[in-house]
This record gives sequence, structure tokens and C-alpha cells, in this order.
Amino acid sequence: MNGDSESRAPRRVSRSRMFGGMQYVHEHDAASTQSPMRFALYLPPQAEAGRVPAMMWLSGLTCTEENFTVKAGAQRVASELGIALIVPDTSPRRLEIPGDHDAADFGEGAGFYVDATRSPWSANYRMYSYVSAELPDFVAAHFPVDTASLGIAGHSMGGHGALVVALRNPGRFVSVSAFAPIVSLMQCPWGDKALRGYLGDDRSTWRDYDATALIESAGWRGPPIIIDQGTADPFVRTQLKPELFVAACDAVGVPLEMRRREGYDHSYHFVATFIEEHLRWHARYGSVSR
Amino acid sequence: MNGDSESRAPRRVSRSRMFGGMQYVHEHDAASTQSPMRFALYLPPQAEAGRVPAMMWLSGLTCTEENFTVKAGAQRVASELGIALIVPDTSPRRLEIPGDHDAADFGEGAGFYVDATRSPWSANYRMYSYVSAELPDFVAAHFPVDTASLGIAGHSMGGHGALVVALRNPGRFVSVSAFAPIVSLMQCPWGDKALRGYLGDDRSTWRDYDATALIESAGWRGPPIIIDQGTADPFVRTQLKPELFVAACDAVGVPLEMRRREGYDHSYHFVATFIEEHLRWHARYGSVSR
Repeated sequence: MNGDSESRAPRRVSRSRMFGGMQYVHEHDAASTQSPMRFALYLPPQAEAGRVPAMMWLSGLTCTEENFTVKAGAQRVASELGIALIVPDTSPRRLEIPGDHDAADFGEGAGFYVDATRSPWSANYRMYSYVSAELPDFVAAHFPVDTASLGIAGHSMGGHGALVVALRNPGRFVSVSAFAPIVSLMQCPWGDKALRGYLGDDRSTWRDYDATALIESAGWRGPPIIIDQGTADPFVRTQLKPELFVAACDAVGVPLEMRRREGYDHSYHFVATFIEEHLRWHARYGSVSR
Repeated sequence: MNGDSESRAPRRVSRSRMFGGMQYVHEHDAASTQSPMRFALYLPPQAEAGRVPAMMWLSGLTCTEENFTVKAGAQRVASELGIALIVPDTSPRRLEIPGDHDAADFGEGAGFYVDATRSPWSANYRMYSYVSAELPDFVAAHFPVDTASLGIAGHSMGGHGALVVALRNPGRFVSVSAFAPIVSLMQCPWGDKALRGYLGDDRSTWRDYDATALIESAGWRGPPIIIDQGTADPFVRTQLKPELFVAACDAVGVPLEMRRREGYDHSYHFVATFIEEHLRWHARYGSVSR
């Protein structure tokens, strides 16, 4: 891989018309991860007439760019609202780093939206830089999408990612919502393993990737944060712990709308049920209303 | 496997709440196929108060009960309309019949909704009997669903299946629609291979599984047949041939609404875009309006 402009161009993997717009999957050589990265991009029909606003979606453990794209049913509402959907993969792939396939919660499919500092992960596992800066810039450079200000949402590990990316980049990510997010990466087994593996044992470096700690230290001045959490979600007590985020928002006066959804689990059936509300909310209060 | 009532009971594989209803996957020991069969069943919230009407969906080559269930987004509209969705698998599985894994268009995932008469397929590959009678009866016996009269729809091989099942059983399947159906199994390579393999070389036995031939010989007295066909579908000329069905319906005066969808391909993105119209149509004109 070299750095000239041709190698950095998007390579189309697929496209398929839906809801009057076009669902693409592209691959490009990402500088952040020094690897080919795939992302899904839905362009609503309004993109034929000029730049459209966008929402970025960050997916959970084991997912690729495909899960949200085929399971959430978001394109129907995106077409109505005139919003593009930018959906990155959850890690670099095909690197053959020793250990990157050993577990579902570390390595491939489990980038946790951090910039790794520990060898051998630090050269490629830089998903925080990739999703917060490189990918939005790349999309704006090659497609009719306005990424100067964005909405962002995500699910589980991706809900953590959406919260962290927005809280640390409020100038660009101006509205944020999440489904069943990991709200404190430092206070759950998934996060402890990921942070130790990608960043090392010095916990002082972990706070930048902990949504609850970020709320406590810097707050949030954007529109209310929306979280949907199913009551039948098997991970809610051990990994997700929404009560930690509620307490932090209460303590510093950040407006949070926490919706507990009776009987809903952790699946994309749950996401599909409520994604319409999130899209409409981003369109009304967030970036995509400009 | 034996025939007592316990072995014939549904075994729940999964359930997940969505859109206020419940998405189930069940398995049962099917008499038609002498094998365990899985099917997806979506029950809308209205099913908590009594029996609800239903639409059956038949899927295409290589699919299981999962594809439509996770990709089409039909449950949202089904909840609004109070319709159950019955989604069978596309063949028996795990039988280890020699040759059942050799191709994507024959054997597992490719039952073509026929009752095989040729050995070794005739003992198990009896998907016509399974979807047209056994499964509707089984659902009515175990769940709050009225299957005395049903709507039916399907995609590709499943579009063929939906047309054939309805045309041959108009007393039970009272409304029918299809996405990119194979309209004449006798007049395309997929169908020729399947019919030869499952039924043998005597073409006189094939007509019962050819939607175009069935229209010519027996017509259709139900509400108009709806077909959606994408213009960017790579199979339209070689396998699907919608013009044969249009000509047959014209010749015998069967009302057909053939919708050519500009730029749409053969994928579930296409199905997801137009499934809402089909569901509303079945609810308005078909079985599920009673």
C-alpha cells in the first residue's frame, strides 16, 4: 500500500437500490489502520440533487458493516428524511496479527473504537481515529455527504463508541444516541480486557474511552442524549450498566433520555424496532436538521 | 422419530420481541418431509387477544427461515395491521442424501416447493405438501393464528412457490403476490434441473408446478395477483421471464398487476423496499382482511 491519491480512492464492493436511494459498500486503504477498510454508505434520493446530512452508525462485537445495513431497516426512514447513513466495520481485518482471532471480544470484530498504544495492536487497531476523523473526511471527499457536523449512534460496543466519539468531538458530532451501550468501558469485563490489551495496564490512559468518565469530566452541551435499553437484555447487569451513566448525567446536569424497553433483548430486532425514533430525533435536534 | 403427539409439538429455537410483538423460530418433526423442519413465526401484539390472520412467505434459493425474518422489515407493518407472518425453510436439512450439497440450485436450500417422486428425494423433499397443508395446520393447532384462509407471497424460487400453492389451493390461499418470481418452472434452467431431478423426465408431471401453465389451465378467481420485478435483476431474462406470466394472464383474463421497478436488483434490499405495499394489499384485498 502506498499513499498516493489513487490507492486512497474508494473501491466499490457492491451497490443495490433500495427505498429510492442506493446502498453501497466501499473499501478503501485507510491511513489510520494501515489496512483496507470496508464501510457501508446509504445515499438517500436527495443526494442526487446535492450534499445531504448524515448519521454514522457504530456496530457491536462481531459485527461488520453489514449487520446494521441489512437488519435495522433504517434506509426507509433515511430516504424520507434525506439522511445518508455511514456504517464502518468494527475493526481492521485480514492482518493475521497473532491472537486477533482467538476471541469474539478482542481483535477482529472487536476494535472497541480505541487507538491502541500497545504492540502488536498499535500499528493498526486505531478505530477511534478512523471513525472520528478519517472516515468522515473520506466520505465528504468522495460522496455528496456533508460530514462537517454529524449525528452518531451505535449498539452495544458501538453505543460505547458513539458516546465516546461524540463526547470527545462535540464540534463535529453534534447529536448522539445509543442502543444498549456499554456506558463505562473501565467498569465491565469486556472493557477491562479490551483496554488492558489495546492500551496496557495504566488505567489513567483508559478514561478517554469511558463514556461515564467523560461525562463526569467534560459534560455535554449538545441536545439530550437518547439511550434505549431492553429489560430482557442478558448483558445489562454485567457489561452495559446503564445506571452508571444515568448517575453521571444526573450529577453534572447533562440531559439524558433513558428509555427502558420492556421485554426487549440485545438483538437487531430491538434495534430495528426503535431506530426510526432515533433517526427522527437526530433529524429534529441534531446535526441533520441544519 | 415417531408419530406420537409429543414428538410433533413445536420446539422453540428462539424468541425475540420486536415492534410490540414476538418473533419466534420453532422446529418440529414434519410428517411431509419425515424430518425436523424450522419455521419463523411472527406474532403481532393483537395475537395476545385472540387469533389473528396471517401471510405465509416463501423464500428463494439458499435461504432459510432467517433471511426474510431479519432482512425484509415486514414485522413493523405486520404489527400495525395485526397480521402473523409464517416463514418456512426452503427444504428439509441434515438428511445427508447423496448430492444434496452439490449445488446451490438443487437439494438443501432448493426444495422448489414440489413433492418429489424420484428416489432418493421422494421420501423427504415434499415441500409442496409441507407448505400448502401441513405447516398451516400445524400453526393453527399450536398458535393463535387463523390459517383457514391465508395470504401468500414469496421471492424468486419462493415467488414460484407462492403462485403455485395459491393457484392450486384457492380455497385456502385467497390472495397471492410475488417478488421476482420464477413464473414458469418448465421454461427455465433452474426449473428444468429441479423438475428433472425431483420428478423425472416425464414433462406431463411438471405442469402442476408451473405457475404459467396453471394460469392457462385453471385461471384464478381471487383478487388481482401482484408481482414486483426489478429492472436491474440479473435473472430476469434467463430464469424469471415475467413476460410469460403476463401473456398467460392476458390470454385467460386473470387480473395481474405487474410492477417493473426501475433500477432494482434481485436482493432483499428490493424486497424490503416494497414489502409494505404487499402486506397492505393482502390486508385490504386478501385473506387477512376478513
